Amino acid sequence: MALISSDHASGEALDLARHADRCVVLLSGGLDSATVLALARSRGAECHTVAFDYGQRHRAELIAAENLSRLLGAASHRTIAIDLRGIGGSALTDDIPVPKGRTALEMGGAIPVTYVPARNLIFLSLAAGIAEVLKAKALYIGVNAVDYSGYPDCRPEFIASFELTAALATQAGIQGGRLAVLAPLISLSKAQIIQLGLRLGVDYGLTHSCYDPVNVPEGGALACGGCDSCVLRREGFAAAGVPDPTRYVGRS
Amino acid sequence: MALISSDHASGEALDLARHADRCVVLLSGGLDSATVLALARSRGAECHTVAFDYGQRHRAELIAAENLSRLLGAASHRTIAIDLRGIGGSALTDDIPVPKGRTALEMGGAIPVTYVPARNLIFLSLAAGIAEVLKAKALYIGVNAVDYSGYPDCRPEFIASFELTAALATQAGIQGGRLAVLAPLISLSKAQIIQLGLRLGVDYGLTHSCYDPVNVPEGGALACGGCDSCVLRREGFAAAGVPDPTRYVGRS
Repeated sequence: MALISSDHASGEALDLARHADRCVVLLSGGLDSATVLALARSRGAECHTVAFDYGQRHRAELIAAENLSRLLGAASHRTIAIDLRGIGGSALTDDIPVPKGRTALEMGGAIPVTYVPARNLIFLSLAAGIAEVLKAKALYIGVNAVDYSGYPDCRPEFIASFELTAALATQAGIQGGRLAVLAPLISLSKAQIIQLGLRLGVDYGLTHSCYDPVNVPEGGALACGGCDSCVLRREGFAAAGVPDPTRYVGRS
Repeated sequence: MALISSDHASGEALDLARHADRCVVLLSGGLDSATVLALARSRGAECHTVAFDYGQRHRAELIAAENLSRLLGAASHRTIAIDLRGIGGSALTDDIPVPKGRTALEMGGAIPVTYVPARNLIFLSLAAGIAEVLKAKALYIGVNAVDYSGYPDCRPEFIASFELTAALATQAGIQGGRLAVLAPLISLSKAQIIQLGLRLGVDYGLTHSCYDPVNVPEGGALACGGCDSCVLRREGFAAAGVPDPTRYVGRS
């Protein structure tokens, strides 16, 4: 499988990425970003991971991100606090109910209430700042345009435009450098992402995807099984034909 | 004076802005952004201001922003906390000394240590998220390419590129809308900005520009008078031929 061909980037940017000894990886603690980190590591990159504490209602993903960063061999991990509740308008940060029990088909088209306005734009901008300080040559982000077609900031044209804007915004850009913005999962299905990650040794039992998890007294959290993110994840494991290691509410 | 002609935006975006009944204004509490707010208000816009608490070493500018928002008639003000110390690399957030006593000429060219990596990219991204939630049609930012030529993210080409990227990142963009990103001061000198603001009724005694202020026991802060920002401000008032209302350390 030609992994490189699924990177979303110009030929020039890809060439940079192949030789990048240092990169910044956006790591949410979910299935997609864990796969991206494993992929970047498999290319021999020195990976610096960043997670965002943005007022999301669940903390489990931040703990998952920290653990995954270490286990997948990142060189450093940081959590940046940013209060997106000041922006509002999302079920992930506000008191808007998280939708449950929809199939992947039913999710298609409309922008879901779990969409956080301009989130990927904000996260990529922060990561670009970190990359500038670290003199990293690439940013990796696990966005996916197949399963999340309703999110405007998961589209390839957004990623390409951001790459140009970031070059103009930063010192590296002025000096003729160019930060490659790589979204290697952008055209993969959830099943393909899972198959890729398993080949790269990702333990998906350590990743967290649920929008509405239930904390358990012994630590950790159970996934609700019914939110859009859980449904896409479950269908992904089923389509990939591999066991789903996720601990769901009401199941062993 | 044709104020509109100094907006940095396409004809289409300008047309939008003239009719915008609602906009988001980035308000730092400094001289430039106060002038931008007064300008947007003079155009009859409903202005929602946002300041960023980004781990800067001085709080005086956040207090100034809140006061200016109210006094200049904004419809709302919010302060968003974001810890840019997690990015590092700047004298404004880290323990790097703020340079003192340089003339405007000496500041030219090189990127100063007070540059916060990707700051305007990050701030504009957050403001785009707010604009999306408020259904605002324009963003105003007080960047200036004349006095801050060393900052990559104050250049017109960055602002234009951001406008395109933001349209792709947001729901409004998908639905065919377009957020105008307006930088009406971008080609003005500091003296021209001051003259504009005075005509619009801005009380510059309430604005805060200093990178290294000294808090005073009775509340408020004195400007150091020697950092790059103070020097540009002082030279601006002198060139404009008007009294400088700033309270500097060691002066009455």
